[in-house]
Amino acid sequence: MGVTLKEVAERAGVSRSAVSRTFTDGASVSAKTRAKVEKAASELGYAPNALASSLTTGRTKLIGLIANNFHNPLILEVFDLFTRGLQDRGLRPLLVNLSDATDPAASVRMLRQYSVDGVIVASSTLPPSFAEAFKAAGLPVVHAFGRYSTAPDVHVVGIDNVACGRMAAKTLVDRGYRQVAFLGGPRTATSTQDRMAGFVAELAAHPQVSASTSFATEYTFDAGRAEMQRLLQHTPAEAYFCGDDLLAVGALSALQEAGLSVPGDVGLIGLNDMEMARWQMIGLTTIRQPVAQIIDAAIELVVEASETPDRRPETRLFPCHVVERQTLRALP
Amino acid sequence: MGVTLKEVAERAGVSRSAVSRTFTDGASVSAKTRAKVEKAASELGYAPNALASSLTTGRTKLIGLIANNFHNPLILEVFDLFTRGLQDRGLRPLLVNLSDATDPAASVRMLRQYSVDGVIVASSTLPPSFAEAFKAAGLPVVHAFGRYSTAPDVHVVGIDNVACGRMAAKTLVDRGYRQVAFLGGPRTATSTQDRMAGFVAELAAHPQVSASTSFATEYTFDAGRAEMQRLLQHTPAEAYFCGDDLLAVGALSALQEAGLSVPGDVGLIGLNDMEMARWQMIGLTTIRQPVAQIIDAAIELVVEASETPDRRPETRLFPCHVVERQTLRALP
Repeated sequence: MGVTLKEVAERAGVSRSAVSRTFTDGASVSAKTRAKVEKAASELGYAPNALASSLTTGRTKLIGLIANNFHNPLILEVFDLFTRGLQDRGLRPLLVNLSDATDPAASVRMLRQYSVDGVIVASSTLPPSFAEAFKAAGLPVVHAFGRYSTAPDVHVVGIDNVACGRMAAKTLVDRGYRQVAFLGGPRTATSTQDRMAGFVAELAAHPQVSASTSFATEYTFDAGRAEMQRLLQHTPAEAYFCGDDLLAVGALSALQEAGLSVPGDVGLIGLNDMEMARWQMIGLTTIRQPVAQIIDAAIELVVEASETPDRRPETRLFPCHVVERQTLRALP
Repeated sequence: MGVTLKEVAERAGVSRSAVSRTFTDGASVSAKTRAKVEKAASELGYAPNALASSLTTGRTKLIGLIANNFHNPLILEVFDLFTRGLQDRGLRPLLVNLSDATDPAASVRMLRQYSVDGVIVASSTLPPSFAEAFKAAGLPVVHAFGRYSTAPDVHVVGIDNVACGRMAAKTLVDRGYRQVAFLGGPRTATSTQDRMAGFVAELAAHPQVSASTSFATEYTFDAGRAEMQRLLQHTPAEAYFCGDDLLAVGALSALQEAGLSVPGDVGLIGLNDMEMARWQMIGLTTIRQPVAQIIDAAIELVVEASETPDRRPETRLFPCHVVERQTLRALP
C-alpha cells in the first residue's frame, strides 16, 4: 500500500537513512538533502508512516482523550476545543468512552498498546483513582475538570469547585433569599462534595439564611426533574443552587409543570453554562466554567508531562463567573 | 518503558516468534505455548504494542472518525454510540475535527500517516467530495448521515432525506395546515436540498396547500431564530418543517418572543430528535433519525470495507418516524 521509503531514497539519490531523518522531528539532515527528499516524496506521493517512525522517535503524537459523560452538552464544547487544540499542535486524540466503566484496567492496557504520548481525562465524575491508574501505568496524565486536591498525584486542570459553591451561596444571599438549598449531582462525585462544601461554608457566615441539601442520582435532566418533583411534595426552598445546568433545567421543568413561576416563586442557579442555558425558553442564570482556558492548559500540561515524565504534578485552577439571565430575582 | 517481548519469551521459555504469534489475531500457536506466554505476560505486566504489531498484520485497529458539526447536540449520541460500538469490536476512534475545513487534504495525509484501517465520515453537511477524497487516497470509507445517491462512490449509511421531506409534508397536510413552509439549513448542504425536494414533491399532490421555502445560514439555534425573525416581518405560514431540531428550537424562541403561541398560532416540526427535543419547555414534534441503527451499520460496513477493499460501494438507508409532542395541532 503506497510508496516506500526505499523508492523515495532511490529517486532522490540519497540513503534510506537520509529519507528517514528528513521525516523525523529534530533529526539532523542537510538542507540540500532535505530538498531532494521532499521533492522526490512529493513527486511519488510518499507520506511517512507516523506509527513506524514512532518506533524510532518514541513519540506517536497520539493523546488518549478519556470521557465518561457523553450526555452532558458541555462535552460538545469540550470535544470541539480539545480536537482543535490538539490538531493545532500536530497531536491526535484517541477517544475512549468510559461510560459505565468501574475499572480503568482495560483502558490502561489499550492506551499502552497504542503507545499514546499522554492521556487527558476529561470528567468531573470519574474518580481520581482512574487518573491515578493511568499514571501508575507510566502514562503522563492530566485530569481536566477534575478534583482540586492540595497534594495531587496527577496534573489537574479545572475550576475550584469549593469556590464555585461559595459563589453560588453569595449570589443567592445577595439577592435576598433566606431559605436556600443545594440540589447536587451524585453524592459520590467529588464535584458534588466540593460544590456543597463551599455552599455550606459560605452560608455559615449568614446565620439568618437556612439551607438544606439533596442529591440527584446523576447529572442529567431527568434526575434533576425527578429530584425537584420529590422536593415539591413539601414546601420548596426559595432558591436552589443546582449541581450543574442539566439538573437546573430538569428542576425548571418540574417547577413549571407544578404551576410555579421561576424566578417569581422559586429561584434557580446552575453551573457550567452549557450552550442551551442561553436559549430564551430556558434563560438559565448560571456559573460559567472557563472551558477554553481549562482545555488550553490541559493540552499544554500533557505535552510538558510527556516531554518531562518526572515533572512534579501541578494543579491549575481557573476562576468562574456568574452569567446573569432570568432564573433569579434581581439584586435588591 | 515497560516489558519487552524478549523478556516474555525468556520467562515463558519459548521463542520470540511464539510470543509475537500469541498476540497476533489469526496467527497459529499451540494452546500449550499460548498458555505459557499468557502466564508470563501477565506476571510481567506485558502489553503487546499495537503499533509495532500493526507493521506485521497491516492492521492498526484505528478508525478515523471525522465530524465537522460539534455544536449539534445529535453529535453527543453519535460519539457515544460510535465509541462504544468500536470499542466493543476492539477498534479505536481517532477523532478528527473538520469544522471550518474547506479541503480534506491535510486530514487525508494525517489518516494515512496513522495507517487507519478505515474512515467514518459522520456528517450531513460535509460535501460528498470529502468522503471521495479519503477513498481516492486508498482509505476504506463510510459516509454516515451522508447523502443518498443512486451511484455512490463510497459506502453511505443514513436516512432517505427525500422520504423525510415527504413525511414532514404529509404530517402537516394531515393536520389540516393549508399554508406550509420549509425552513431549511444551509442551501448548499445536500441534506437541505434533499429534504426540500421531498417536501415539495409531496405537496405537489395537494394543490390546495400553498408552500414556501427559505434557508438559515447554518444548522444552529441562532440561525433558526434569525430566519424566523425575518419571516415574522411578514405574515408567517401556518406551519414550518424545519431542517433540523436546532433550527426548530431557534424558530420556537422567535415565535414565543413575538407573542405567538405554538402550536396555537404556528406549528413546527423538526428533524433528528436530539435529546433536548423532549425537554418539557420545548416539547418538539420531530422526525427521529434512527441513530443507533445508522451507527451499527456504519461500523459493520467500515470493517467489511477494510477487509475487502474492492467491495462495491453500498448504500444503506433506515426509515425515520414522527415523534409526536406538542408543537403541531392534533389530527382532526
